Amino acid sequence: MNIVEIINKKKNNEVLSNEEINYVINGFMNGEIKDYQMSSLLMTICFNGMNMEEIYFLVDAMVKSGNVINLSSINGIKVDKHSTGGIGDKTTLIVGPLVASCGVPFVKMSGRGLGYTGGTIDKLEAISGFRTNLSEEEFVRQINEINLSIISQTENIAPADKKIYALRDVTGTTNSIPLIASSIMSKKIASGADKIVLDVKYGIGALVKDKEAAIELAKIMVKIGNRYNKKTIAILSNMDNPLGNMIGNGLEVKEAIDILSYRGNKELKELCLVLAAYMVSLSKNIDYKEARDMVVNNLINGKALNKFKDMILKQGGNIDNIKISNNIIEVKSNKNGYINGINALSIGKLVMNLGAGRLSKEQGINHGVGIELVKNVGDNVKVGDVIARVYYENKTIDLNDVIESFKIEDNLVNKEYIVLGVIQ
Amino acid sequence: MNIVEIINKKKNNEVLSNEEINYVINGFMNGEIKDYQMSSLLMTICFNGMNMEEIYFLVDAMVKSGNVINLSSINGIKVDKHSTGGIGDKTTLIVGPLVASCGVPFVKMSGRGLGYTGGTIDKLEAISGFRTNLSEEEFVRQINEINLSIISQTENIAPADKKIYALRDVTGTTNSIPLIASSIMSKKIASGADKIVLDVKYGIGALVKDKEAAIELAKIMVKIGNRYNKKTIAILSNMDNPLGNMIGNGLEVKEAIDILSYRGNKELKELCLVLAAYMVSLSKNIDYKEARDMVVNNLINGKALNKFKDMILKQGGNIDNIKISNNIIEVKSNKNGYINGINALSIGKLVMNLGAGRLSKEQGINHGVGIELVKNVGDNVKVGDVIARVYYENKTIDLNDVIESFKIEDNLVNKEYIVLGVIQ
Repeated sequence: MNIVEIINKKKNNEVLSNEEINYVINGFMNGEIKDYQMSSLLMTICFNGMNMEEIYFLVDAMVKSGNVINLSSINGIKVDKHSTGGIGDKTTLIVGPLVASCGVPFVKMSGRGLGYTGGTIDKLEAISGFRTNLSEEEFVRQINEINLSIISQTENIAPADKKIYALRDVTGTTNSIPLIASSIMSKKIASGADKIVLDVKYGIGALVKDKEAAIELAKIMVKIGNRYNKKTIAILSNMDNPLGNMIGNGLEVKEAIDILSYRGNKELKELCLVLAAYMVSLSKNIDYKEARDMVVNNLINGKALNKFKDMILKQGGNIDNIKISNNIIEVKSNKNGYINGINALSIGKLVMNLGAGRLSKEQGINHGVGIELVKNVGDNVKVGDVIARVYYENKTIDLNDVIESFKIEDNLVNKEYIVLGVIQ
Repeated sequence: MNIVEIINKKKNNEVLSNEEINYVINGFMNGEIKDYQMSSLLMTICFNGMNMEEIYFLVDAMVKSGNVINLSSINGIKVDKHSTGGIGDKTTLIVGPLVASCGVPFVKMSGRGLGYTGGTIDKLEAISGFRTNLSEEEFVRQINEINLSIISQTENIAPADKKIYALRDVTGTTNSIPLIASSIMSKKIASGADKIVLDVKYGIGALVKDKEAAIELAKIMVKIGNRYNKKTIAILSNMDNPLGNMIGNGLEVKEAIDILSYRGNKELKELCLVLAAYMVSLSKNIDYKEARDMVVNNLINGKALNKFKDMILKQGGNIDNIKISNNIIEVKSNKNGYINGINALSIGKLVMNLGAGRLSKEQGINHGVGIELVKNVGDNVKVGDVIARVYYENKTIDLNDVIESFKIEDNLVNKEYIVLGVIQ
């Protein structure tokens, strides 16, 4: 086999065989296939796509490039949860305790992630003392005790995906449905859960902007999961506006506690309830309505919040000491009207500029900085009202950029429901 | 500027600016833009193409990456000649002497080339003692004396093209009209001639298989040349069958001498006459018919052959000692009928397997090996007739593969005229 012939085949819109896809992944991992050949092939895939068979082969090859985690020492049906990422997405911090409080094991290996804000692990590390690097033994023991642990991803989950993703990031080949689907699902399959709930986001602040493309992505990922006999459900959720009121690492932990205390942003709460209910329904094999009732009850009665507190305590964290900067600037509205939108992408870039995110693995991040949306979509504001607070440390941003992220208009436009639909 | 943004722009089928294209070429040459980013961008160009403005900018940036040769010390209007390459193409060896014999300077810096057989320089090096590395002074003196010299290309002609071409070769990005056009024309522009005649080939044995694509390529190259005020004419010629009867380095020199002796293959002779006549017509600013008469006369009266002999003598070669192997196997027909085609690509691969060509710059080539077509397209053959001779040294080939390259049928099909048309 020959990589140039394989590139030409895909360039001519032909279908690659299992052998060819394995040859590509193995050759790329052992250095026989060079970065410049892989990026060229990835670009042909951006243009010509892949059919479901090719996607299955690709996922399989990437899963096999590393270890598949064995979770059999953990009791119960394990359901994994994954979001395609967005601005202010702290759902894992809320969904985990909700699910665990219903007796369902929440087994989560998260990443630090590149992007406008940190990943779940970065967020948790805003909690003073919180350990994300438990040993496997500690991890398993904790889940069997309290059904809940979130730790950082071990290095050997789908290393081919990791190497390919790093290349895609610098070669303009991120934006491809088959590549996104296989990247996410190879990690999910290798993570060893029995069932999977996906939160697929669409909109300005999402990786996939277009609703139709997000639906396609969701359908493909559901097919991949089911192919591995891991029942998979995908929620489609809107990411035109930031999710919730807080964007930044420590700020998002604080908001998670707010939601678990049955306060705070309604959209965020609703999305978390939907995700948690589907996870409980899958794990316990009960219907969605019944599962949702359980989840809502445990949100209201405080059991979910207690689970979160238990986890923080067990992993060495101090919930009373969450890194949030004391340097706060208030941002005031320069218009009267209704907030019909808050541009998630521009808010994302602003918190990135404050230091909340990173563009390369080597970069550190600042856990204390971020933006709080004091007013959110649907609210009525007057000139001079505080609409946002900027939490900064060593870097500042232009407040006009914050103001311009708010779309304030004379008439209220009905906003889209946070959950567009469910694909299963 | 940012290479990922530029890749995404071209991926979205937007037009790149002069600044962006310069940034790409300069960044690639200084190492700021990596091979894996360049190959990704090249693949977007394979899919989305480039408009004429972008092609002009690309040619310009590649020309500027190296030196532009100053030929002002050579008298007369200098006309360069270039072929897009094919199997058995030895036209430079014939056209040069024809043109020079009409008093037109033939100033040729050729490459060794990668491919099934060597480049013009490799072919000339089959002549014992022939020097292809004249100093600039020797080169200029020889042209002013006899109007004819062929030497190897200096290193600093469009180095960006050289670096890009090497990458295209291993990343499946060779097949792109704008990339082929700008690669060829950047070298032609930098080579300093006043006018240019191109031989654009189409067919099984050509870089561009499709006739329509070859016409497009020719039109683009003519536009590029004219943009630099270098009047450019493109001949479109067929490359379904090998050109002439000889394929291999020394064998092709021998065939060039045959043609210059007014013997040999009619198609090859006709194509050389057309190319030479257009060159003479451009240099002397006379019409094609008048130029063709001059060229034909000098072919018949032996003046062109004498020019070739003069050049070989001046460059140290011995025309009586051309490397051609003495190990010859005859290949006989297993059918009765008419030869309606000889697959140029498969003949090319066979001579490559004999050792006549190279796939990487480091490889040596064997000057003495090759294939002689004893019978050619249009001939009637009987079972047992010798149709070809294989000249081999240390490697052999399967003779059945030679036989299968011949399409022998009951009825004679009229063959296409060697020259499809002229674009100017």
